[in-house]
Amino acid sequence: MSAPRDKGWLTVIGLGPGGPHLTTPAVMNVISEATDLVGYGPYLDRIEGQEPSQRRHASDNRVEVERAGEALRLAAEGRRVAVVSGGDPGVFAMAAAVFEAIEAGDPAWRNIDVRVEPGVTAMLAAAAEVGAPLGGDFCAISLSDNLKSWATITRRLAAAAQADFVIALYNPASRARPHQLGEAFELLRGLKSGDDLVMFVRAAGTKEARVKLTTLAEADAADADMRTVVIIGSSQTRTIDRPDAQPWVYTPRREMVGEGGA
Amino acid sequence: MSAPRDKGWLTVIGLGPGGPHLTTPAVMNVISEATDLVGYGPYLDRIEGQEPSQRRHASDNRVEVERAGEALRLAAEGRRVAVVSGGDPGVFAMAAAVFEAIEAGDPAWRNIDVRVEPGVTAMLAAAAEVGAPLGGDFCAISLSDNLKSWATITRRLAAAAQADFVIALYNPASRARPHQLGEAFELLRGLKSGDDLVMFVRAAGTKEARVKLTTLAEADAADADMRTVVIIGSSQTRTIDRPDAQPWVYTPRREMVGEGGA
Repeated sequence: MSAPRDKGWLTVIGLGPGGPHLTTPAVMNVISEATDLVGYGPYLDRIEGQEPSQRRHASDNRVEVERAGEALRLAAEGRRVAVVSGGDPGVFAMAAAVFEAIEAGDPAWRNIDVRVEPGVTAMLAAAAEVGAPLGGDFCAISLSDNLKSWATITRRLAAAAQADFVIALYNPASRARPHQLGEAFELLRGLKSGDDLVMFVRAAGTKEARVKLTTLAEADAADADMRTVVIIGSSQTRTIDRPDAQPWVYTPRREMVGEGGA
Repeated sequence: MSAPRDKGWLTVIGLGPGGPHLTTPAVMNVISEATDLVGYGPYLDRIEGQEPSQRRHASDNRVEVERAGEALRLAAEGRRVAVVSGGDPGVFAMAAAVFEAIEAGDPAWRNIDVRVEPGVTAMLAAAAEVGAPLGGDFCAISLSDNLKSWATITRRLAAAAQADFVIALYNPASRARPHQLGEAFELLRGLKSGDDLVMFVRAAGTKEARVKLTTLAEADAADADMRTVVIIGSSQTRTIDRPDAQPWVYTPRREMVGEGGA
């Protein structure tokens, strides 16, 4: 975890899903010690109080392996490099891209002190906005088929329904992929009850957070965009109505009513 | 997220898996504003710099619903109450217990300003200790059958193998449940390759963090205890050997070798 580092290094960090109130002190510490910040421009823009001597290397979000390679070259030269993700860097983000680049790249890169600093991933902040829908067993699936086949995605959705997992969908929609979420809902309607709850949570963890609560039968894929996490409840996920406010949504830890402990 | 709160309230917080370096500023802020801290004793002990006027309500870890009820009574009386979990409060922790207590309890509790503040859940810190094993689609399953049947757990393990999810196992073993992890490995050996990677990560996110990397064929349930998260790789999860150090483990974002972006 915290062994001293006296030459070039690379740490992949996650800023969390929202503002700095969800960024861990460990991540802030990496940022303060880094000579170079590498990442998708909008994530770098979220970092305040940068040292004037610190170099930024911003890129767009479709060149992860190239960006990782650049970061590794800098670290190999002795620079202290933070590779910046949103959320948690290990969940559908830059950490895997860095290891892909290491495996395919210069063998000398295996000598670099590479670390990963965890963060609050988007589905946790999304869940917190509505209550505790991830209170039972759950799975996380990226709907993007840029890197895996749609057949793999549908196989996983079907297995998740069979397992009665709560399902968190990352990357539910983008301009280039407008139809997949609708197809996912259609598939799940054949395998789960239409009464199962669906939550569209946009910009979780920020002041602009917005929640739409509906059912699988009524869910409309048009309610998701790139900043949305979609959470689909298990058969156990339920609402608690309350006066003058949106219902809370949670998944009980137990399957049946009764008493016990965990 | 941050609307003002002018009467009693209850916020369920997660301290993260390790020391204060993994606790978010939002959670520290809730702690500083709370009049009452309610939680499992060892979690409360992790909170430093407590105000003398702040009241602690420590309990053991088998009375979650009672503890939640006590917290709700305090909030209904006008106190500002933080219910303290480790990790993320929505993942196998106190948030669901609070909502269970609300649903079954005094209808007036539905008027309480109840919020959840997310945190870094244990599997994210465990993954970061070894590389990026959660880089693909994954699921999280609690092996505790205190609150659900073992049949439900085995059904979920089988579906997870069928989906080729990376599997994070919470609560893999305790003194009261020493045999379940061995049974889970045995089941998975019938459904997955014996070469699939298994990581035992103990005390992730702390200076005492310890990793044991093995394969499903060789995995020994005796290597897990209550502080361990077990991560079982998908068919795609792989190692990168490096000189004089434990291999990195990661799951590529793509299924096949090739180039692309996400």
